[in-house]
Amino acid sequence: MYIGKVVATVVATVKHTTFDGHKLLLVEMQGLDGQPTPKYDICVDAAQAGIGDVVLVMDEGSAAKQILGQKAESGQGAVRAVIVGIVDAVQLA
Amino acid sequence: MYIGKVVATVVATVKHTTFDGHKLLLVEMQGLDGQPTPKYDICVDAAQAGIGDVVLVMDEGSAAKQILGQKAESGQGAVRAVIVGIVDAVQLA
Amino acid sequence: MYIGKVVATVVATVKHTTFDGHKLLLVEMQGLDGQPTPKYDICVDAAQAGIGDVVLVMDEGSAAKQILGQKAESGQGAVRAVIVGIVDAVQLA
Amino acid sequence: MYIGKVVATVVATVKHTTFDGHKLLLVEMQGLDGQPTPKYDICVDAAQAGIGDVVLVMDEGSAAKQILGQKAESGQGAVRAVIVGIVDAVQLA
Amino acid sequence: MYIGKVVATVVATVKHTTFDGHKLLLVEMQGLDGQPTPKYDICVDAAQAGIGDVVLVMDEGSAAKQILGQKAESGQGAVRAVIVGIVDAVQLA
Repeated sequence: MYIGKVVATVVATVKHTTFDGHKLLLVEMQGLDGQPTPKYDICVDAAQAGIGDVVLVMDEGSAAKQILGQKAESGQGAVRAVIVGIVDAVQLA
Repeated sequence: MYIGKVVATVVATVKHTTFDGHKLLLVEMQGLDGQPTPKYDICVDAAQAGIGDVVLVMDEGSAAKQILGQKAESGQGAVRAVIVGIVDAVQLA
Repeated sequence: MYIGKVVATVVATVKHTTFDGHKLLLVEMQGLDGQPTPKYDICVDAAQAGIGDVVLVMDEGSAAKQILGQKAESGQGAVRAVIVGIVDAVQLA
Repeated sequence: MYIGKVVATVVATVKHTTFDGHKLLLVEMQGLDGQPTPKYDICVDAAQAGIGDVVLVMDEGSAAKQILGQKAESGQGAVRAVIVGIVDAVQLA
Repeated sequence: MYIGKVVATVVATVKHTTFDGHKLLLVEMQGLDGQPTPKYDICVDAAQAGIGDVVLVMDEGSAAKQILGQKAESGQGAVRAVIVGIVDAVQLA
């Protein structure tokens, strides 16, 4: 998983049922210094995140499916990256 | 998933049935600024995309298979990247 | 797997049961020279690691799930990276 | 998948049955401009490719297994990258 | 798969049974020119490799599991990278 910041909402014509009822959010990955990196993912939102939120992204397909299955009983699993939570703090000690 | 632009059609001698009836498109990945990056994937098209379209690419094997299975009942799954939709807008707020 | 150093604890609002009872630790990957690299993972801890520890990180989803399943009988598997051990030595000969 | 060029044959002492009867070829990945990149994979050949051929590489484990299973009924699947076809043309329009 | 060189043995406190009876070796990836790159993996050894050996690394989880299963009947599979063979030659023509 990595820490990222939600920077945009993606509107796309996708018909697969996995995406029904879930927002697609563009999350830019943050580096160790908390600064943005050039990497990003288009994520399915499972944490009611919004633009500007610092979030935890699960970037592995089968784990992402588990999380959506738990939350939405969709059971379809056509997903790679999911926002699993809102980051409250990163504690260095 | 990531956002990319279809830049070419790939013509190849591939005999595996997963590819029957699907175009192979070369999609260059776009960065956070909407500019092209050096990364690309040869994708199976599941969204009737054409050259010049800005598309959403699912870059994870098992998710990609789900999408093709849903659409084409091929059930074979020998695929890694699939074009799942056409991007209509990226909304920053 | 790679070798990394635990640099922070991540506090996040994540409701998925896989994470119950496990710390989320930010591990920075070390390079071949033992120096930190810009890469990191938010890992589930399965080795009682703490900040400053040099650890072995399993960065593959299905393997990570096996390790948590063995240790915690959670069986949920929504995980990508797990701290599997504490590194005692890297012997060059 | 990506496009690459076969640059060498690898001779290795590997006993796993998945590799029986298949050549191991070193394929250097090509960039969007058709030039070689520093990335490469040691691929199992499923397309009768030879040195100098421009090929399509499936770089995802479960998809690669499907292709070998279809072709060789080996059913073992210990493979990550497979040459699935010979590229005939990349058409920009 | 990629070609790498074994540069160190890793001694770590890992209790998972997948690792029982297998050495953990640090393998630095080699580039197309045969020179070392900054990338590395901590690999489970399935080829009786030693420090200095040029080896073939299977860097995909499910394939790596197959190889260990075949060799050691461990059947546990908590592994991502495995040394599958010793490279004898890379033939450019």
